[in-house]
Amino acid sequence: MRDVAVVGVGMTQFGEIWEKSLRDLYVEAALAAMDNAGVDHLDSMVVGCMTPGLFVGQEHLGSLLADYLGQKYLAASRVESACASGGLAFRTAFIEVASGMSDIVMAGGVEKMTDISGDGATYALAAAADQEYEVFHGATFPGLYALMAVAHMEKYGTTREMLSAVAVKNHRNGSMNPFAQYPFKITRQQVEESVMVASPLRILDCSPITDGAAAVILTTVDIAKKLGKPVIKVIGSGHATDAIALHSRDDMTTLKATSVAAEKALKMAGKTLKDINFAEVHDCFTIAEIVVTESLGLFKPGKGGEAAVKGETSLEGSFPINTSGGLKSKGHPVGATGVAQIIEVIKQLRGEAENGRQLKNKPKIGMTQNMGGSGGSTLVHILEVA
Amino acid sequence: MRDVAVVGVGMTQFGEIWEKSLRDLYVEAALAAMDNAGVDHLDSMVVGCMTPGLFVGQEHLGSLLADYLGQKYLAASRVESACASGGLAFRTAFIEVASGMSDIVMAGGVEKMTDISGDGATYALAAAADQEYEVFHGATFPGLYALMAVAHMEKYGTTREMLSAVAVKNHRNGSMNPFAQYPFKITRQQVEESVMVASPLRILDCSPITDGAAAVILTTVDIAKKLGKPVIKVIGSGHATDAIALHSRDDMTTLKATSVAAEKALKMAGKTLKDINFAEVHDCFTIAEIVVTESLGLFKPGKGGEAAVKGETSLEGSFPINTSGGLKSKGHPVGATGVAQIIEVIKQLRGEAENGRQLKNKPKIGMTQNMGGSGGSTLVHILEVA
Repeated sequence: MRDVAVVGVGMTQFGEIWEKSLRDLYVEAALAAMDNAGVDHLDSMVVGCMTPGLFVGQEHLGSLLADYLGQKYLAASRVESACASGGLAFRTAFIEVASGMSDIVMAGGVEKMTDISGDGATYALAAAADQEYEVFHGATFPGLYALMAVAHMEKYGTTREMLSAVAVKNHRNGSMNPFAQYPFKITRQQVEESVMVASPLRILDCSPITDGAAAVILTTVDIAKKLGKPVIKVIGSGHATDAIALHSRDDMTTLKATSVAAEKALKMAGKTLKDINFAEVHDCFTIAEIVVTESLGLFKPGKGGEAAVKGETSLEGSFPINTSGGLKSKGHPVGATGVAQIIEVIKQLRGEAENGRQLKNKPKIGMTQNMGGSGGSTLVHILEVA
Repeated sequence: MRDVAVVGVGMTQFGEIWEKSLRDLYVEAALAAMDNAGVDHLDSMVVGCMTPGLFVGQEHLGSLLADYLGQKYLAASRVESACASGGLAFRTAFIEVASGMSDIVMAGGVEKMTDISGDGATYALAAAADQEYEVFHGATFPGLYALMAVAHMEKYGTTREMLSAVAVKNHRNGSMNPFAQYPFKITRQQVEESVMVASPLRILDCSPITDGAAAVILTTVDIAKKLGKPVIKVIGSGHATDAIALHSRDDMTTLKATSVAAEKALKMAGKTLKDINFAEVHDCFTIAEIVVTESLGLFKPGKGGEAAVKGETSLEGSFPINTSGGLKSKGHPVGATGVAQIIEVIKQLRGEAENGRQLKNKPKIGMTQNMGGSGGSTLVHILEVA
């Protein structure tokens, strides 16, 4: 397999962007990534998008977006793994470059979520759960993550304060991210007084409904050097699935697909967690960040919440998590999220993170963890400054 | 890149299969393919499905289907390129094996189309067209292909008889396929007296709405030899897109994405069309087969219809097309179609085509052409007996 590098990144503002359609958003991010990489053509494009059919009545995005990007006859495809679609697009593009099939490949992600009316977004997102055994009986994602939170509290004594600590930290980070949907700080009191969604999760425990797109350009390390760009190598890629129905899992307080994907990525990279400096993880709900950091092996089972309270995962902590603001503050256009995570890692490794959220001590290796549904799929990637 | 072979094939009956759900259908085909290959585990799985969100309210198929297949924690994903989703799954799996990332990969396809009520299927399928510039204004696929048919008739003098010849031929072939939805012969008179859908296309010019699944196992040629299976190599893979909106194309009477994908696949294989013995092509409507055979370069522009009338594309002809019965007679569960085309080519190359439709003179090289929408995406593959 050939060595692969990321040479360009671009994303739109995340938010309720009612004046731009799905195709407008994608093309804006894609052109920014091509400009950032200094390339004017692609050999292939992989677009991650969860459910454009349910959100805007449109499938066949690979072709549609290649056309609007002006890349005629491009080998362009779409991949889907619910909220991990962006991470899957990145992995698919990585394999394509590594294989020798294509030299310059765009991995993009997009979701246009606010055009749907009423409760539509919640029900569209529920297509990531088991339609026949969960959704049909009334379950949606806030409810499923609330079940995980209750189980975690029961088993480990995880507290309301710990959930709040995740939200407060991520909003602090996001307040320094110019692309974030909610770029402002919040307090513990605000989180704990916010409206209840599914007990114990309140609205400020939940990531928002978001429009947005993100794109990165992958190529070989050899071509990256010729382009004169900082060379950030993809050294590990792990992908694993689990039952999408929460009740079919062995244990609701851990995420096995995340553990397996991380093991695979670390093995491929020839690294251990001690070598990783920071990570972007999938905090679709505050409880998710706690369980994910435990499942990755960063903290012992039941200790993820305490780590957040103690500031270990803050910008200044021993292992910063979600320096971008995470899904919670930056926003969560589901198909774009996995790619936006890669962008934050690239920015940190390049030393380009905006407005004071740049990590000190020149980080060398970063990780992303992007998951679908209540953890039914997970993609983990490890990137290193060459 | 490593040499890749197909070592196992499996599919369900195609038809209106109301007693089986999407997951039941997929698992049935997948187990048949694993049994046929003689493998009991997978390293990865790629599922092609066009729009399970609109048809059955379910996304996240990679995880769901890996779980139901009993392949815990598998790296499993879904890809989509409208009606070319199956072909895209095959290409994605091919690249993954070729890259060295995985050794044993399943490429599967599935669509459950008959659970949706009323006109639902037509509108779900319309998500493969341009929602904002075609569908919003009332266009659906029978109408779009009817426009292509009228343009082709105007430009080249293509006739009603030529369209009928395609339908009659494919039903004759399909009458010998035990997996076909409509395994019976039809006459020219029946086609021409069938109900009008979108002039000049009648109901017997159209492929049906179908439930079904298909799966194949890809691995390296080295592993294939150890498994003791007939080694059928994947020697060419071409993928190209075009504007999905028909009015955005330069010419409605040809399919540029098909031409480009075929050129790429032939170049990769180091072959010319003269080396290919037969093909499965995307006859979603009778006019499609005519335009596709011209766009592939098998016949000159405007001569595809005449070739069908003269029997050149029949089982006994100089270049047999759709020996399986094609989408027209075999059925068209959109996500499964591209994989089912591969299965027919494998069966013909192994000498296993059922009930008298086996080609004489031991074919050595076969081709598939699978397209999305009105030709907005195309996948072409070339397979050869090793």
